[in-house]
Amino acid sequence: MQSVAVRVRLAYVLSMEHGDVLPPPVHPPSPTIYDVASASGVSPSTVSRAFSRPGRVRAETAAHIHRIADDLGYRRTPPPRPGTPTSTGLLALVASDLSNSFFLQIMGSAQRAAAHKGQLLVVVDSQESGELERHALERLIGVVDGAVLATSRMSDAAIRSIAARLPLVLLNRPMADVPSLITDTAGAMRAAVGHLADLGHTAVTYVAGPEASWADGMRWASVRGAAADHRLRARRIGPYPPTLAGGRAAATAFGERPTTSVIGYNDLISIGLLRELTWRGVRVPEDVSIIGHDNILEAAHTAPTLTSVATPLERLGRVAVEMLQEQATASPGHRSAVAARTAKLPAELVLRGSTGPAARTAQLRAG
Amino acid sequence: MQSVAVRVRLAYVLSMEHGDVLPPPVHPPSPTIYDVASASGVSPSTVSRAFSRPGRVRAETAAHIHRIADDLGYRRTPPPRPGTPTSTGLLALVASDLSNSFFLQIMGSAQRAAAHKGQLLVVVDSQESGELERHALERLIGVVDGAVLATSRMSDAAIRSIAARLPLVLLNRPMADVPSLITDTAGAMRAAVGHLADLGHTAVTYVAGPEASWADGMRWASVRGAAADHRLRARRIGPYPPTLAGGRAAATAFGERPTTSVIGYNDLISIGLLRELTWRGVRVPEDVSIIGHDNILEAAHTAPTLTSVATPLERLGRVAVEMLQEQATASPGHRSAVAARTAKLPAELVLRGSTGPAARTAQLRAG
Repeated sequence: MQSVAVRVRLAYVLSMEHGDVLPPPVHPPSPTIYDVASASGVSPSTVSRAFSRPGRVRAETAAHIHRIADDLGYRRTPPPRPGTPTSTGLLALVASDLSNSFFLQIMGSAQRAAAHKGQLLVVVDSQESGELERHALERLIGVVDGAVLATSRMSDAAIRSIAARLPLVLLNRPMADVPSLITDTAGAMRAAVGHLADLGHTAVTYVAGPEASWADGMRWASVRGAAADHRLRARRIGPYPPTLAGGRAAATAFGERPTTSVIGYNDLISIGLLRELTWRGVRVPEDVSIIGHDNILEAAHTAPTLTSVATPLERLGRVAVEMLQEQATASPGHRSAVAARTAKLPAELVLRGSTGPAARTAQLRAG
Repeated sequence: MQSVAVRVRLAYVLSMEHGDVLPPPVHPPSPTIYDVASASGVSPSTVSRAFSRPGRVRAETAAHIHRIADDLGYRRTPPPRPGTPTSTGLLALVASDLSNSFFLQIMGSAQRAAAHKGQLLVVVDSQESGELERHALERLIGVVDGAVLATSRMSDAAIRSIAARLPLVLLNRPMADVPSLITDTAGAMRAAVGHLADLGHTAVTYVAGPEASWADGMRWASVRGAAADHRLRARRIGPYPPTLAGGRAAATAFGERPTTSVIGYNDLISIGLLRELTWRGVRVPEDVSIIGHDNILEAAHTAPTLTSVATPLERLGRVAVEMLQEQATASPGHRSAVAARTAKLPAELVLRGSTGPAARTAQLRAG
């Protein structure tokens, strides 16, 4: 399995323009409350109490736990500073569709990063609805210490309104005044279009995802720009729901004006399209090459396997939670700098079986 | 597609023995906060404030919302009675593995049932760990109004300790003094074993799931009992993790002493086994028939498709949340009866391509 690496080193940048680059923060692996519990032979909640409410734990037990903690080099999360609101030890991840494994993979690493500081991550599925998302966040103000919004469907104004009352980190959507974490879509899309050009394709169709999604606008703009550079014709169909069903639905519009290559908004749309075209007798990649986005687990299990832009899902969840934790502990003087931060993670194109040389003539049998 | 229905009508029973049967509660569809918001042209949070903090909403707006609410017959959740702790409007679902679509399907219906009463459902993934589960619940006491524990991995004692401080409903695990919701495993397993007997099988292997799971013990006992009735030899291998990888791992032990039929703890184990056996050259169902449990979405998309015991996932989530809501509003005199309630939902066997007539001789080529 080849991999065209489009690596941009993990850089915390203060703007979208690759302006002033700060060094990435160092995160040495340090022992968690679970490590201390395991080594002490007690439950994590007992360890927690030994630090937060010493009177609630037997003196010998507490001494034992403190000794083990010292041995392991365990550092507990500092208590909230006087004047700051009390920490609840809870963080939230709001995701637009938990049945998309994209979010599950992000959730896993976010959960570990939260546990690393003794925090619990709770998850809310907003079902692709900006209204449900906002309603959920209103409920969570004062309940959680902060929230990661993965592919938020809310308006900028709604996000600002929540951010004034609850620390937020936005995933896959940059805003000037709310901390956000994005991936290098433009670079990855250049690699994807370049790959298609190398294979002899002269036209590409972009299958659009949700209109309320910043990522969708950015992906289409990147495809269009890269296509112009490589002298490919680029067109856009959609929007479609970012699901398998959305991809299946796109097959009809695609079949009316087919091209020899397609880039989908995400892997689910791309897999849905791949399945529907195959069912209609179109051969992938002989007749049509397909590229997805996200590199979710399923991309490696389709037939043929799916070429996809790999976003660093593990890192996305971890870094988002770390940015949230950083906000909570930022000193007042430092807070506005933290709030203005946009971090960008690299993406790379993973080549698999769904892309191949362009057919001499479009052999589409799609209806 | 046939379906051997093993229907036990939805019965709220006070014990596992089908003793005194109470009529199921009636839940007419009634308008939600979202319906009022939509009809009023305002956000759900404005509707919420119009009821809970009238001073925070313009007087005309509040009057408008109340009029619409009256027209629609919207009844807000009654305010907490004096003496009861304040409601937070949050419920939790603790699931052992959100990447298993079994839990995602339950989550969807639980979420809708919560929203129906203006509550928000948050989800925690306990990663098959009883310790993480307990730690999460300790954090959630006082934060959520109650929690649904789906396939809890905690000990009975740990569950009782939490239940004393937080309303709980257990899914797939009955306890005498904690409300629980189970499915009719025994009846469904009788149907599964009977189906194998009808196909001429004389032996069945049960692939066990987590030992800490009540459902696992119950499923194996049911398979063994039904096998005795039908004069099949029954053996058990495992335990294995309830995942695709667990099923793959089971193939080796199965291959050492193969039988012509297998019943897996859940669909993921069964699909993992099916894939691994197929990869090793064993034909399903010609050489080995396989039956799963849960009837998750993926069961219909394997090759061959998977025969599975269908648990009513939609209902499980909805009824569990309704039982939680019922606990919260039960009058003091009624509370112990509510707490002692075990509800049982029907299950049915869905026949698909992975089961067929027994081979005359075991044709296993599994290593």
